[in-house]
Amino acid sequence: MNELERLTADVLHFRDERDWKQFHNPKDVALSLLLEAGEVLEIFQWKDAAGVAETAQARKDDLADELADVLCYTLLMAHDLGIDLSAALAAKLRKNALKYPVDKARGSSSKYTGL
Amino acid sequence: MNELERLTADVLHFRDERDWKQFHNPKDVALSLLLEAGEVLEIFQWKDAAGVAETAQARKDDLADELADVLCYTLLMAHDLGIDLSAALAAKLRKNALKYPVDKARGSSSKYTGL
Amino acid sequence: MNELERLTADVLHFRDERDWKQFHNPKDVALSLLLEAGEVLEIFQWKDAAGVAETAQARKDDLADELADVLCYTLLMAHDLGIDLSAALAAKLRKNALKYPVDKARGSSSKYTGL
Amino acid sequence: MNELERLTADVLHFRDERDWKQFHNPKDVALSLLLEAGEVLEIFQWKDAAGVAETAQARKDDLADELADVLCYTLLMAHDLGIDLSAALAAKLRKNALKYPVDKARGSSSKYTGL
Repeated sequence: MNELERLTADVLHFRDERDWKQFHNPKDVALSLLLEAGEVLEIFQWKDAAGVAETAQARKDDLADELADVLCYTLLMAHDLGIDLSAALAAKLRKNALKYPVDKARGSSSKYTGL
Repeated sequence: MNELERLTADVLHFRDERDWKQFHNPKDVALSLLLEAGEVLEIFQWKDAAGVAETAQARKDDLADELADVLCYTLLMAHDLGIDLSAALAAKLRKNALKYPVDKARGSSSKYTGL
Repeated sequence: MNELERLTADVLHFRDERDWKQFHNPKDVALSLLLEAGEVLEIFQWKDAAGVAETAQARKDDLADELADVLCYTLLMAHDLGIDLSAALAAKLRKNALKYPVDKARGSSSKYTGL
Repeated sequence: MNELERLTADVLHFRDERDWKQFHNPKDVALSLLLEAGEVLEIFQWKDAAGVAETAQARKDDLADELADVLCYTLLMAHDLGIDLSAALAAKLRKNALKYPVDKARGSSSKYTGL
């Protein structure tokens, strides 16, 4: 069992103990994933560059907490939909490598449509 | 190197080849994480229960693609902030086990404040 | 002064009294707008159809509160960018009427690309 | 009929012509409101301060378009829930005036819990 599979098993165990699978249709899981991503972002609300750097240190534990929630729902959704996240990420990087070839994208924050 | 470390190494390699670290302050990465979570959710927009189940099948590849983006930014942010995601997830599950004890939370979708 | 102008004047007065314009670049205002929209949605998290209808009644005051925040940032952003919201809404409805002609869109929740 | 009532009547007319009320339970409307707010924010993705100012000018029409969508769903939700937005905004400003008194909040971006 690799690390992602082990973590997925942990969150499934947590969910099954509480009989929460019944609430976890993919739309509601996606909605919760989004709200958790919002809690990550909220930590940086109104911060300028200096404030962001300071906050990243000062609230590292809160950020770890919220990122864990994001990962939790990502793992659950992938499991429920039968998606292999490692394969999906590898495929996405290959696709993005075509959209953002190194020689054109290097050092640019433009969207691929503007390269 | 475990699976999460290997995936993180892959996305760092992709970023470094393009010299994109310079754009990746934690606030902008969090913002992109949220927008990618929005793209997952958008796939289920306006769908009722039957439509959600159908869409989860019919658009499995798109969902894999968008979840890969979510995972990508989650890994980058954890790396940049020095957060161990496996440890963070384990800690969060322990914390949630206290907020949602099995005997009280079983079969209920209430927030812990309402249990 | 019409109603939108009057409400905009109220939120500008609130902001100016606190000297908060300095924090309100459009990106940070857009970010706050999104987080407030998330607080509206969070009220319905995990609710099924019956729960949504019940919650809409039981938490009407909270929903009014969060919608007021959404409107507040919408008005501020429109003001700061020099956007006439009434004209923008009228233009958008005209544009959507072309994308979703009554005879094709009637009773369908499909995206215009699927009509 | 004041301006907000007139705009609400316009979006209701657009919706009724297409018989879309059947899809507009408050949870799905809130979800769409959030996704539209995400489209506003996406316009500023990866932009630094200079890029934000430039983008606010260069893409003013797109911003007007997306803000119109946000306003559209805000008006629909308020209408469907029987919420008076003008009253809700006035009430929220009074509440925020207590949380953020002028003498304490002036020139500070801190959350009220940190004032």
